This record gives sequence, structure tokens and C-alpha cells, in this order.
Amino acid sequence: MIIIGEKINTSIKNIQSAVAAQDAEIIKDIALKQAEAGADYIDVNCGTFVDKEPELLQWITETVQSVTDKPMCFDSPNPEALKRALEVNKNGKPLINSITAEKGRFNAILPLILEHGTSVVALCMDDNGMPETADERLKIAERLADDLMREGVKLEDIYFDPMIRPIGTGSHYGVVALETIKGINKEFPEAHTICGLSNISFGLPVRKLINQTFLVLAIGAGLSSAILDPLDNRLMSFVYTAELLMDKDPYCLNYIAAFRQGRLDA
Amino acid sequence: MIIIGEKINTSIKNIQSAVAAQDAEIIKDIALKQAEAGADYIDVNCGTFVDKEPELLQWITETVQSVTDKPMCFDSPNPEALKRALEVNKNGKPLINSITAEKGRFNAILPLILEHGTSVVALCMDDNGMPETADERLKIAERLADDLMREGVKLEDIYFDPMIRPIGTGSHYGVVALETIKGINKEFPEAHTICGLSNISFGLPVRKLINQTFLVLAIGAGLSSAILDPLDNRLMSFVYTAELLMDKDPYCLNYIAAFRQGRLDA
Repeated sequence: MIIIGEKINTSIKNIQSAVAAQDAEIIKDIALKQAEAGADYIDVNCGTFVDKEPELLQWITETVQSVTDKPMCFDSPNPEALKRALEVNKNGKPLINSITAEKGRFNAILPLILEHGTSVVALCMDDNGMPETADERLKIAERLADDLMREGVKLEDIYFDPMIRPIGTGSHYGVVALETIKGINKEFPEAHTICGLSNISFGLPVRKLINQTFLVLAIGAGLSSAILDPLDNRLMSFVYTAELLMDKDPYCLNYIAAFRQGRLDA
Repeated sequence: MIIIGEKINTSIKNIQSAVAAQDAEIIKDIALKQAEAGADYIDVNCGTFVDKEPELLQWITETVQSVTDKPMCFDSPNPEALKRALEVNKNGKPLINSITAEKGRFNAILPLILEHGTSVVALCMDDNGMPETADERLKIAERLADDLMREGVKLEDIYFDPMIRPIGTGSHYGVVALETIKGINKEFPEAHTICGLSNISFGLPVRKLINQTFLVLAIGAGLSSAILDPLDNRLMSFVYTAELLMDKDPYCLNYIAAFRQGRLDA
């Protein structure tokens, strides 16, 4: 399971104020803690600073890279902000989060992927908005795979995101997301699947319970990476345990190690 | 999800002593609490009392039926004990737990199923013992389905148990169980699938975490019933939430109701 640490995002209050104040220590601390907790990528997002996003994303990137060499996940739809961050990237192959099948966004982001040889999160949506069914999502994934591969992007560098809708707005949206993950794994076994967890529980009580349960179901459906909070011991416990049960942890080595480190929370 | 309450089992210390002392109040109390917590069946097992099992299973059955009309799950391989319990059953169609494809056991239990028109848990094992692969389990399930249906048992009265082996003794046993559940659902959609949860975590630390996670994965694979402790709020929270996410809870009604009753534990 590839873990993308989500905590450096200015939609989170203390990150918003830390970035506003250019307080590098808070950013460094959270970057380091996520790396130590098992994050494979450090996601950085300062989308709330609309006008200053390019310079701030560059500053955050340099700040994070001063304490960890974990690869970066550059989380923005803004090509200028991505460009600034990519130009200072020195932590190996980064992940751009994200591209879609929307013509304008696709054409704006593609050159950056090619110029910097990055991996990319590909959202299963196009100019018609977010699709309703798993089949519609798969068709968009096929189009994205064709268009990206034609340009030389390898399948193993594509992270398909099924685009999860809140279960509270449609009781079938959990199954739609899981069927999309299964379909993408079947059609593109070399590619990755990825998702965030918070959308699924939007508007319902005890959201953590829904997010934990959905993560387990998604891992059961073959999800290969997730954008989450690696400092959430309870959530990470389900990652270790679901991987154990899905035969991704030979001899239970990771599970036992997590237990010995006191990181399994029942 | 059909819940079989597992708590009245003399392998549990306080039940062992309550049955030894013929203390009806303790049995009644646990029966009632499980019914109130959402158990659809009350499982009764006094297998530790080898010689006195028939008379004691009858006594437990009468005791449980004095406080709840939930259907009974008679949990014994002993035909004489099952016979005594079935003769005093008055809580509707009971579930016999269990039959196997072992010749002797099959022939001993079958007449009781037919005479009393019961449902039955069918364990995917035969005279060669517990199978290794999912395919072997499916072949046994097919044989059990054929043999039971030939005698007039309906598929909807059969609860197939994949027979779960501890993940600590083979990292593939989780996937084997999940693939067996999927295969049985595909081949016999009218039938039920069932399992206990404790075997999967045998010998590993933080067993509750493994049991909770496996239950979610099994519901994701289509498990339609489980033998568990309905008084375990945390475990039941995952039942409500997994059903919600698998589109088994239109408009989130059960999930919201469980939340309002303070029964969702994150």
C-alpha cells in the first residue's frame, strides 16, 4: 500500500496559519512526522491562497525537502504552481495531483508531466462533470490511459482515482467506487488506484467509522494507494490489518512489527 | 446481515459454570441481551458437557425460549443432543449448526433437518479434512448443495461456511476464505454464506482488530450472515457501516438509527 500523507494542506486550520506566517518549523515537523509514520509521499496543497499559490507551493516544497527525502505529491490544479514546485523538486520522482479528462486541464497539466517525468493522479471525470456509474468512470479511465500513454506516460506512473461521492447522497456510491477500483485493476493491472477517504462520509455522523470501513473495503477491492493521515494510528491499523488479510504481508511481518512498535490500535 | 448470537456457549467460562449450576437467570439474561442487541438467531452450545450434552442442550433451549422468541441455532455435532433440542423447539424454524460432507456426520444429521424442516450450516469440509484451496471448498459446497437439495432441502435454508483457517498459519487463508464466499454467492445466490470470526486471528496479537477487519472484508465479499457477539458494540458498528457502504442500507436508515441509539463506536 502506497501512503500519501495528506496533512500539509492549507484547508487545515493550523497549516493555513503556518503558511500565512511562513512558519517553516510547523511544516517541517508535520512533514517529518508523516514520513516517520510510514508516508511514501508527502502531499502539499496551498490551494486556499489563490493568488499566492505558486510562490507558496514552492516555499512549502523547499521547506519539506529540507527535512525529508520522501517523494513529493504536488496537489494543485494550477499549472503555474505545479511548475514552480517541480522546478525546485529534488526528492525523486514526484506525483502530480491531479489531471482529469477535462480538455483544458488535461492540456495544461500534460506538458509538466512530460517535462519533469512525473507520476500523476488521474481523476475519473471529464467535461461532463463527475460520472454517475462505474462504467462511465471506467470509460473515462480508458480515455485517460490512452491519451497519457500516447504521450509516453507509463501505466505504472498513473494513479486512477474513481472519484468518490458521499454515501449519504446515494446509497450506491460505495459500491460504484469499489466496482470502479476492481474494473481499473482488471483492465490496467500495472496502473495504481488511489482515493481520498473523507468524501465518502460527508454529511453523516461518526465519519471516522465510515472512513475506516471504506478503506478496508477498498483495500479488499484492490486499492493500491490512499491519500490519508498517516498519523491516525487507528486508520493505519486498518491498513496493516487489511493488507495482512489480503495476503500482502507474508509471514505477518509488517503486522507484527507495527504491533511491537505499539502502532496497532483496536 | 443475519446475526447469530454466539454468547451462550459453554466454552465461555461464565456460561460453563451457569450451565453446570443450572442457573437459568444467567442464560436468560444473555439470551435477552443478544436479542435486544439485534441477534436474529440465538446460538446454544454446551459441547463441553460431553456426556450430559443432550439433556443440557434441551434445558438451555427451554430456558432461552422462556424469554425470547428469536429462532434458535442448535450448535452441536451430536445427533442425540440436536434431537432433544429440536423436540422442544417452539421459536420457529431453527438453524442446525452444523453438517459437513463427512459421510458419517452427513447421514446422522440429515434426518433431523428433514424431520424438523430446519435450516442448516454446511461446513465446507469432508472426510479428507479441511481443504486447502478455495476451489476445493467450492467443490465440497457443490456436493453438499447437490446432496441436500436431492433430499428436498432448499438452497435458501443452507448456510455455507467456508471454514476459515488462521491467517497466522498461512498468509493466503484470508483470501481463500473471501474467494470461497464470492464463489458460493456466484454459484448459489439463493443460499447464505456464514462464518465465525475468531479462527482468522488465532495466535496473533490484537485479535479484535483482525476480526473486525476480516468481517468488513467478508461483508464486502458478500457474506450474508455471521456468528458473532452482538453485544460487542464496536464489532456491530462495523456491521452497520459495511452494510451502509455495500448498498444494503437504503437512505442510511439503519446506520442513523444505530447512531441515535448510541450504538456506533469509532
